[in-house]
Amino acid sequence: MYAISLGEDGAELRPLEPWHAEEFLAHLNRGREFIGQHIPFGANATDADSARELLQSYADKRAADAGGLHGLWLDGKLVGGVLFLHFDAERGTCEVGCWLEPAAAGRGLVTRAMRILIDWAVDERGIHRVEWQASTANEPSINVARRLGMSRDGVLRESYPHRGVRQDLAVWSVLAPEWRDARARAARDDH
Amino acid sequence: MYAISLGEDGAELRPLEPWHAEEFLAHLNRGREFIGQHIPFGANATDADSARELLQSYADKRAADAGGLHGLWLDGKLVGGVLFLHFDAERGTCEVGCWLEPAAAGRGLVTRAMRILIDWAVDERGIHRVEWQASTANEPSINVARRLGMSRDGVLRESYPHRGVRQDLAVWSVLAPEWRDARARAARDDH
Amino acid sequence: MYAISLGEDGAELRPLEPWHAEEFLAHLNRGREFIGQHIPFGANATDADSARELLQSYADKRAADAGGLHGLWLDGKLVGGVLFLHFDAERGTCEVGCWLEPAAAGRGLVTRAMRILIDWAVDERGIHRVEWQASTANEPSINVARRLGMSRDGVLRESYPHRGVRQDLAVWSVLAPEWRDARARAARDDH
Amino acid sequence: MYAISLGEDGAELRPLEPWHAEEFLAHLNRGREFIGQHIPFGANATDADSARELLQSYADKRAADAGGLHGLWLDGKLVGGVLFLHFDAERGTCEVGCWLEPAAAGRGLVTRAMRILIDWAVDERGIHRVEWQASTANEPSINVARRLGMSRDGVLRESYPHRGVRQDLAVWSVLAPEWRDARARAARDDH
Amino acid sequence: MYAISLGEDGAELRPLEPWHAEEFLAHLNRGREFIGQHIPFGANATDADSARELLQSYADKRAADAGGLHGLWLDGKLVGGVLFLHFDAERGTCEVGCWLEPAAAGRGLVTRAMRILIDWAVDERGIHRVEWQASTANEPSINVARRLGMSRDGVLRESYPHRGVRQDLAVWSVLAPEWRDARARAARDDH
Amino acid sequence: MYAISLGEDGAELRPLEPWHAEEFLAHLNRGREFIGQHIPFGANATDADSARELLQSYADKRAADAGGLHGLWLDGKLVGGVLFLHFDAERGTCEVGCWLEPAAAGRGLVTRAMRILIDWAVDERGIHRVEWQASTANEPSINVARRLGMSRDGVLRESYPHRGVRQDLAVWSVLAPEWRDARARAARDDH
Repeated sequence: MYAISLGEDGAELRPLEPWHAEEFLAHLNRGREFIGQHIPFGANATDADSARELLQSYADKRAADAGGLHGLWLDGKLVGGVLFLHFDAERGTCEVGCWLEPAAAGRGLVTRAMRILIDWAVDERGIHRVEWQASTANEPSINVARRLGMSRDGVLRESYPHRGVRQDLAVWSVLAPEWRDARARAARDDH
Repeated sequence: MYAISLGEDGAELRPLEPWHAEEFLAHLNRGREFIGQHIPFGANATDADSARELLQSYADKRAADAGGLHGLWLDGKLVGGVLFLHFDAERGTCEVGCWLEPAAAGRGLVTRAMRILIDWAVDERGIHRVEWQASTANEPSINVARRLGMSRDGVLRESYPHRGVRQDLAVWSVLAPEWRDARARAARDDH
Repeated sequence: MYAISLGEDGAELRPLEPWHAEEFLAHLNRGREFIGQHIPFGANATDADSARELLQSYADKRAADAGGLHGLWLDGKLVGGVLFLHFDAERGTCEVGCWLEPAAAGRGLVTRAMRILIDWAVDERGIHRVEWQASTANEPSINVARRLGMSRDGVLRESYPHRGVRQDLAVWSVLAPEWRDARARAARDDH
Repeated sequence: MYAISLGEDGAELRPLEPWHAEEFLAHLNRGREFIGQHIPFGANATDADSARELLQSYADKRAADAGGLHGLWLDGKLVGGVLFLHFDAERGTCEVGCWLEPAAAGRGLVTRAMRILIDWAVDERGIHRVEWQASTANEPSINVARRLGMSRDGVLRESYPHRGVRQDLAVWSVLAPEWRDARARAARDDH
Repeated sequence: MYAISLGEDGAELRPLEPWHAEEFLAHLNRGREFIGQHIPFGANATDADSARELLQSYADKRAADAGGLHGLWLDGKLVGGVLFLHFDAERGTCEVGCWLEPAAAGRGLVTRAMRILIDWAVDERGIHRVEWQASTANEPSINVARRLGMSRDGVLRESYPHRGVRQDLAVWSVLAPEWRDARARAARDDH
Repeated sequence: MYAISLGEDGAELRPLEPWHAEEFLAHLNRGREFIGQHIPFGANATDADSARELLQSYADKRAADAGGLHGLWLDGKLVGGVLFLHFDAERGTCEVGCWLEPAAAGRGLVTRAMRILIDWAVDERGIHRVEWQASTANEPSINVARRLGMSRDGVLRESYPHRGVRQDLAVWSVLAPEWRDARARAARDDH
């Protein structure tokens, strides 16, 4: 029902919900190898039931105001998504992330969608610290963090195993005042 | 984050969620007497906690794909809402409803919002039968059903007590083919 | 332990509980085709586990005072049952229903049992409105509603799919004062 | 709905359920001092809510086939009850018990009701061992065990505190073959 | 992390937890025939998952302060255990038990471990009555009860089926004052 | 029951469990101001019930193998503790922490206890990365991390509010090979 246009190329951001299970699975199957290079997202969603389970876990998080999943549609086709992995309004923190199938990469979709998520978190929900975590080997992800004006807080060494190798996990963040300042600057520069 | 414009008067439809509890309570307090004439909606939501509880019950329904709550905002102020009281994709049925504070009445807000809900239910989710229930004494509500092109299926006699009197409950419905036909006709008439 | 005699033909009404699973399954297997003509009752109970699951769902409803299942035994053989599909003492409403295997049809068993259920609902539990729903194609069921002195409240068009066809669902009801009046009249006529 | 006559004095055995909460509370209040001499039954049920809670705990046990509560009514007044404290069909064991308000004592009500419970447990549910536990100080209770033909298995010393004193708990039991033999003998003696 | 030495032969008592599942299963497999002579302990734990399930059930009991499992390690090898089958601090009672693989039998391991459990229950947790239950046919188990200074409270006749035969269940117990006296006497005798 | 001596000054490490609620509350009350300087630990545990709730939350974590609480006793008096805030055996990570009342500070208790926890995590449970988080303002805590041979991974800026000020959160860690190397070096140096 709800959709937010991300620009003139027909890209849209929409809630991604359990009833999308089959569409989500088809998308994962197109992107499985590409997505799985650096992150485990969707690795366990290999049929309609397990895909629905993954979507349901985020529907439950959303109901508990503890996270949420948003899909990216390009010309009516689900091609990736952005998400709140964690959301803690009381503490004023959240962690955001993303995934894409190859056909959707390189168009700035994630950055555009992420601005909408962070605007909402900061302006509507009073989030003070927005965090981004990525394997140090995951350059595209780290580039998103940079483009969003985030700072690198540090590297959590050998944090989790992915495809047999423990990954160094870079933590980036942007604080609410930084976000608002950067937004104001960008608005001025546009004029 | 998400919002659907309902027209040029600044009215918007948005998900209504537990974190809106205080805004929702203020709205209920403005409309309590008016809303309570015919329906019990919100009667138990008398402070921030009970307001949040009501919103949470719908957040849980939404996570279970069994219902959902959507607020109506007019110039940034929550003035009412439309909802799926029940939603059963497997059976192909849903029940919709609404409530308004007095300041928002008489502008067609509910009808406009309801078209969006029913379009989504019918087109995206495969719902075959959309139901509307209202006390036979609730003329404004029954007028909405009429404007939406619904038919009266019958009257469930003395179905529930409201303010000490058992209400006759009219059941109205529109079926998916009827909805699509009426929409097509309306589109032709617009030209 | 408990049993209510339904007359001189040896028919009895008893609670139907999870431990009856095998007896219930055998009965369903004898009546499956006949029962399934108009209603989905028991369609998913195809082995001991799924039969127990169905019985358990009603045991749980009964514990929550939200429904209940009662079997009809003829000469010690389970041949059908009557049930509260919903029971809402606070609202003062309930929905009743029935099913039979062919060997038990045509003897008035359901009508006799239903009088006991409705007497209890009205006299002991303060139920005001007793509802009966049946596909308009299900004449035997609608005849029961008539024999119980119910009125037709309306027809919920194309309410649910059964064997590939959406069924029109007739809603019948009897209100507590109507029930008591009819009973008093019948008692007078007996003298 | 269901009731089993216990004889010509108008005594009846019926399921005792959460909706009886107020009637149950009134009965407890009449018998509180008497009942509480030896057992803690009902001690925490001091208002309608806590009375309903106790009844609900047995409704849940019954739904799980793990116990059950049955009231004794004398001339339409609840005066006591018999119960399955535990019921384990798989293991073939159950524990039975009772309570009475003073006005109902000395009439053999419990013994009559207990025969019905044990008959059902042994004949219908395949229970092999029926257990009865009573404080050694509770002579009326132990007399019931004797009248039911039970044997004393032993005394669990200082098993639980009641009114500040740890009670020795006598365990009595009757096994299915013993029960059937005694019943057959009694039937012969009646002739 | 935690371990209590049981003497100079390298025997140790440690919490036995879900992460020990594989070690526990290997131990059960070595002792299955021997352990199963008299008790059903571990009979359902036949692979890593079911072994973990058994351990988890006791981890949950421990979290609820309602029981607990402790392993016996001999030279670093799990060879048996002692347990609180029930633990009820409010009522002041607990039930203890044990199991061993054959290689660990005949060394007094259980008696040594049990003294530690009972000391803790009586001294730290205020338990008044410690119970031991064993099939009357299980002489080694009954000898442990004797060595712990317990008294026989009685025999629960034909209490549960084991390998097709209903077992008479002896109940033994020691009360806190008895335990403390015996301990004091033993301490004096040591000097 | 279980206790690990931390040296010749009578300090001991023991599981800290819900039944310690009153002892735990008394300890918190002695240390509340001191503990609360930098961390929120125990801030909500202000009476026996809330103290038990905190302990129960860790008992539940332990049952789920997701954390655990261990108390430090000095001459039989609870004076602080060490804990696994998170424990994830599958991912190979855990987060450890500590708290002390003033009387127990400056004796190296936490460092001694922490070595035991980390040894167990690394040697017994296969944890690869042990994490320590502390406000950058919390020098005593950061000194513990240093003494344990940890490295600073970074600073999560303005991570959480404490007493009205958002704290920069330093993340320190030690990896399993580092831990083993340092231990081996220390062992050699001792000779």
